[in-house]
Amino acid sequence: MAIAEGIRERAEQIGQILMAYLPREAGQQKLVIEAMNYSVQAGGKRLRPMLMQETYRLFGGKSKVVEPFMAAMEMIHTYSLVHDDLPAMDNDEYRRGRKTTHAVYGEAFGILAGDALLNYAFETALTAFDLEPENKGIPRALKILAGKAGIYGMIGGQTVDVAFTGKPLDEETLDFIYRLKTGALLEASMMIGAVLAGATRNEQAAVEAAAGELGLAFQIQDDILDVTSTQEVLGKPIGSDARNEKTTYVTLKGLEAARAEVERLSRSAVARMERLVVHNEFLMELMLYLIHREK
Amino acid sequence: MAIAEGIRERAEQIGQILMAYLPREAGQQKLVIEAMNYSVQAGGKRLRPMLMQETYRLFGGKSKVVEPFMAAMEMIHTYSLVHDDLPAMDNDEYRRGRKTTHAVYGEAFGILAGDALLNYAFETALTAFDLEPENKGIPRALKILAGKAGIYGMIGGQTVDVAFTGKPLDEETLDFIYRLKTGALLEASMMIGAVLAGATRNEQAAVEAAAGELGLAFQIQDDILDVTSTQEVLGKPIGSDARNEKTTYVTLKGLEAARAEVERLSRSAVARMERLVVHNEFLMELMLYLIHREK
Repeated sequence: MAIAEGIRERAEQIGQILMAYLPREAGQQKLVIEAMNYSVQAGGKRLRPMLMQETYRLFGGKSKVVEPFMAAMEMIHTYSLVHDDLPAMDNDEYRRGRKTTHAVYGEAFGILAGDALLNYAFETALTAFDLEPENKGIPRALKILAGKAGIYGMIGGQTVDVAFTGKPLDEETLDFIYRLKTGALLEASMMIGAVLAGATRNEQAAVEAAAGELGLAFQIQDDILDVTSTQEVLGKPIGSDARNEKTTYVTLKGLEAARAEVERLSRSAVARMERLVVHNEFLMELMLYLIHREK
Repeated sequence: MAIAEGIRERAEQIGQILMAYLPREAGQQKLVIEAMNYSVQAGGKRLRPMLMQETYRLFGGKSKVVEPFMAAMEMIHTYSLVHDDLPAMDNDEYRRGRKTTHAVYGEAFGILAGDALLNYAFETALTAFDLEPENKGIPRALKILAGKAGIYGMIGGQTVDVAFTGKPLDEETLDFIYRLKTGALLEASMMIGAVLAGATRNEQAAVEAAAGELGLAFQIQDDILDVTSTQEVLGKPIGSDARNEKTTYVTLKGLEAARAEVERLSRSAVARMERLVVHNEFLMELMLYLIHREK
């Protein structure tokens, strides 16, 4: 599949950009830097920086100013996983078959490495001022980064998810968690790409809405795969939501309604992107691939 | 004592500025916002925003652009205390006679409220762009804020302190911890005030050096009071460093050397401030008060 190959290639390039922005493992504070870099190097698909870079290209962006923001976004995504895995939260010892940060470095350093990554994300994004001082979009891109990662974005969704752990969710709360915990950083990624490339406010809003739909569809597809896939395809046990008595879009609305909602969201997101005066074929394929993925 | 009254008045005014910048306790994410605000409202002397504001005034600053940075600085200081108090770190149930954040809201929300405060600090500081868009110092002030709070500043010192808990420290490591864990945010506070008021690079460097000496002297004075004060004056048991077998400047170098070092640092900081072409009597008194305080 050509898109899978394109994703793989880009993820590798993004991995190299990330490495260049990670702090050097030196000095008295070497241990926390090792823990930070261990967390980021755990890999993953680098979807957020990829969406950012492709949206930047969509609007004609051609400089390296987007790179510190790409790195910052991945650092924020990573810190959220590091803290999510802590004993006081999900208490996960493994993630993608690799020991989690606190499992390797201890709980105190799991907390500190997460803090350090969040802080370093802003230090990193702020270097954009040195790369392209004349880019008027940088302050707004920083505000989007901070806003979508905070209490009105990702952390907000995360706190509601934690507060409702083990309790049944209604549709409104589930929607809130999906939109904030998953959606907000996807929105930020695409918006920052647009802003840095000089997109208009209307274009930014279109991209934000499409990214929000992408995030929601992505999350509902996750719920669907948990009941329809097989362990072989998914690479992890299926049916875990039912076993954990977790409220998902599928348990609330049923499989058919979930599939219909993914279709609706997907069509809407595509239509928004097609109405733009600019086009990026890879970005469109990437969005559809994420929504309709089989694993 | 006139200076104590001046500090009290300013702390109250700063408290009001802070309140205005705290997020409203509303929405699905209300609980984490309550935990954030509980942490910040625990009080404290608001020394960092006070030093920032007075340094801003020293260099002729007259607008409100410094206020979001004052609030952001106190949020960062507060998040560091909230995470420091966690069970995996110092495991403190009380701070200044009040239950710590995790003791009230649980460990998961202690972690999340700290994360949320750190993130909100940047959201808050970024609003400076709206208050004074023409102020060319804002990007640099943001970089100082992020840099001095991060792995080459406060978090860096904190991680080394945690890594050496229960182990003896040599003088170099103790100095590193004091300079970063305590000193870095004091340096940032005074530097940001200077930068936002348009101070020159040389003036910024002088203020940074003076603040660094202030931080170190403040910390050594802490060590001295732990052996020379009384529980009545200090408001907490004395001799706790010896009981905890904690390496301090006093245990390493002796009381007389510690007192001499405080004197030396104090004189040097004062001399640096006096060599500036501008003067702020209150700021000078505040610095001396902090260094020579009896509790």
